[in-house]
Amino acid sequence: MKIKHVRVTPIAFRDAPLLNASGIHEPYALRSIIEVESDNGFVGLGESYGDAPVLSVLKAMKDSLVGLDPFDLNGLRARVKATVARIQPGSNSGAELAPGSHPSKQVANAYSAFEVAFLDLQARSLGMPLVDLLGGAVRNEVPFSAYLFLKYAEHVDSPYQPDRWGEGISPEQLVAQARKMIDENGFQSIKLKAGTLLGPEHEVACIKALKQAFPNAPLRIDPNGNWSLETAIRMAELMGDDLQYYEDPCPGLEGMAELHRRTGIPLATNMVVTDFDEFRRSVALNSVQIVLADHHYWGGLRDTQILSRMCETFDIGVSMHSNSHLGISLMAMTHVAAAVPNLSYACDTHYPWQEEDEEVIKGGKLPIRNGCVTITKAPGLGVELDYDQLGKLHDQYLAIDIRSRDDVRQMQKYRPDWKAVKPRF
Amino acid sequence: MKIKHVRVTPIAFRDAPLLNASGIHEPYALRSIIEVESDNGFVGLGESYGDAPVLSVLKAMKDSLVGLDPFDLNGLRARVKATVARIQPGSNSGAELAPGSHPSKQVANAYSAFEVAFLDLQARSLGMPLVDLLGGAVRNEVPFSAYLFLKYAEHVDSPYQPDRWGEGISPEQLVAQARKMIDENGFQSIKLKAGTLLGPEHEVACIKALKQAFPNAPLRIDPNGNWSLETAIRMAELMGDDLQYYEDPCPGLEGMAELHRRTGIPLATNMVVTDFDEFRRSVALNSVQIVLADHHYWGGLRDTQILSRMCETFDIGVSMHSNSHLGISLMAMTHVAAAVPNLSYACDTHYPWQEEDEEVIKGGKLPIRNGCVTITKAPGLGVELDYDQLGKLHDQYLAIDIRSRDDVRQMQKYRPDWKAVKPRF
Ligand SMILES: [Mg+2]
Ligand SMILES: [Mg+2]
Repeated sequence: MKIKHVRVTPIAFRDAPLLNASGIHEPYALRSIIEVESDNGFVGLGESYGDAPVLSVLKAMKDSLVGLDPFDLNGLRARVKATVARIQPGSNSGAELAPGSHPSKQVANAYSAFEVAFLDLQARSLGMPLVDLLGGAVRNEVPFSAYLFLKYAEHVDSPYQPDRWGEGISPEQLVAQARKMIDENGFQSIKLKAGTLLGPEHEVACIKALKQAFPNAPLRIDPNGNWSLETAIRMAELMGDDLQYYEDPCPGLEGMAELHRRTGIPLATNMVVTDFDEFRRSVALNSVQIVLADHHYWGGLRDTQILSRMCETFDIGVSMHSNSHLGISLMAMTHVAAAVPNLSYACDTHYPWQEEDEEVIKGGKLPIRNGCVTITKAPGLGVELDYDQLGKLHDQYLAIDIRSRDDVRQMQKYRPDWKAVKPRF
Repeated sequence: MKIKHVRVTPIAFRDAPLLNASGIHEPYALRSIIEVESDNGFVGLGESYGDAPVLSVLKAMKDSLVGLDPFDLNGLRARVKATVARIQPGSNSGAELAPGSHPSKQVANAYSAFEVAFLDLQARSLGMPLVDLLGGAVRNEVPFSAYLFLKYAEHVDSPYQPDRWGEGISPEQLVAQARKMIDENGFQSIKLKAGTLLGPEHEVACIKALKQAFPNAPLRIDPNGNWSLETAIRMAELMGDDLQYYEDPCPGLEGMAELHRRTGIPLATNMVVTDFDEFRRSVALNSVQIVLADHHYWGGLRDTQILSRMCETFDIGVSMHSNSHLGISLMAMTHVAAAVPNLSYACDTHYPWQEEDEEVIKGGKLPIRNGCVTITKAPGLGVELDYDQLGKLHDQYLAIDIRSRDDVRQMQKYRPDWKAVKPRF
């Protein structure tokens, strides 16, 4: 089996005005949809970042993959390295919250994007679910958490109608957001994105309100490294035992290590441990107790399995990080999570924020039931591309002028003096 | 595809009177040959230890695997754990030099034995070489080293004619042994098994003679932890820069760490880092700089890949350990080594010591050319079982009374007062 064609299609879909440490989400999120077609008629699917630097690597890779055996993942890695060395893709400084779009991660994330498509192609050609190539499912239902955001009711100068979630600023509004998301999806755990301009005290008040409203749901807060060590300690004291874990409250491996020493609270990260070298440094410092894996920048599904085994070896918990994504990414996350015995917490996903009419897979959005996504016996990832939808979202990409995510610039539309500062509090 | 039959056949083959830290090899080595047959007519092969405690687990496993999908490696692991918990296999204290036969390693080594056969079955059913399931070959020729032993000309009360290697006691005899092994196989690196009753000074004299005779060949010495820290330091001073690495000179993670601190010499091991928990402890202490992997006890080929990636992460070299083995093990080592990008040294193998008429694979012993074993495009491991030979070696197993390797007891036939002492020097 050889690869005959590779297609990389940038798409854009509506994204809600969600607040975060950098500023606020832009009105559209970018992704790329990868199709790898074999000479015997199978197509493997992948989904990755759609920002310009990533896209430039993915597009530059395309031709070099023709003729490669889709089982030859070492060959894929060699070709990615050669391509990145050749084109030296530009930086993408605005995308700090999406670690995979950092320039230093270009090899890992281009490899990841194609690895999923290669594995999907392998599995489809064998007529088996992708998880079977990963050693088989230890669970068929993978748990996800309710991922709450502080948010405005609509974007400034919004190009489309307000979303169905409404404003999410007050603790009461956050509780209502959680209730709606849990009613619709059955989530058992709750995560609050924090580090926003509303400030730590306000965000802790939201956690307190959520704790009261959902006393049995494990709670997490993620300030994206936007609190100083002192602020993180002070907020830890306010939240007491309310948290299941404390996600990236303050910046840096050293800061996180010091925070853990001083509070004893389990710390999770998708910011200070984002590659194997940082893993090594974190182990030496005991910086984090939970790594939030993400196959989009850790090196695909097999490297996510390797990371998970490393976590098991070093007695570190494992769960999963998410950026705004569609169903192909969701199923890739689900297949690998199904094959990770030591998955210790419900995974994160932005998927509930995505609009019903903007899924690229046939049949529309995937169901989340009892907080879980289920893997089926269908070959590969178990989803098929809807080419009408792909065309529509690609046209939307062509129609807008966003080419690299920049939450700082977007916030400047609300507050002209807004700057990237970290930690802000 | 489901598993229909599993066969585990213990075999015995002639083993030369090779000296080591425990004493001396017995006249026969034991192995088990594993066959896993699918309902669509493919047979996957494996080879593992043949000692009684290991064999008892492998045999107890057999029926539990019928009906399992050979892609379900997580299912295999669960069944191995359940079986070991049920039967609580006995200890095997004599087999210290074969880490996989330790009772604490029963799960890892039974899993390993079947994992290779499962992967071989997967690859054969797909008509592809096994290495392709491991991500594809980064090299088709895998380098091995000349593995020299101090040895007697024949066993005490030998049940068969003397081997073709003759006595290997004096430095001149060792050089002649090396020359013969290199002439026949083209090896580029040389390893000397040490820690024998002949003592460290004698063994260092052998290294000096080898250095003079083969000035360009990287040299290694492996006393199997039989030298004290002080002796190991003293011998390091005598050998100076003669060594590529120093393999398990003294016992324990702490001892090895101290030795490295005091000498700076790169230390290799197959004794103090034999599982992922020991890997973690070694990283904390900086005990070793090279891990000699062995798929027979690390958890099969995929876990050997994971170990290799961990070594890359923690800047630790990787090569491979060997016990007395036949061609199925050799090809399993070769396929996984071909898929490990960071394989940093030629692998060890006892294969040249095995007699021409005692191979269980069709066509007899595999060729080693220019010191390398080559993987082909043949499906799976690329070797087929010779059932006449299997029957002959199984009959030999039935005819002898060795059931667990015991090099101490064997040495007592030469020296009645011989005891297991470590470190002896
Ligand atoms: Mg996060
Ligand atoms: Mg050794």
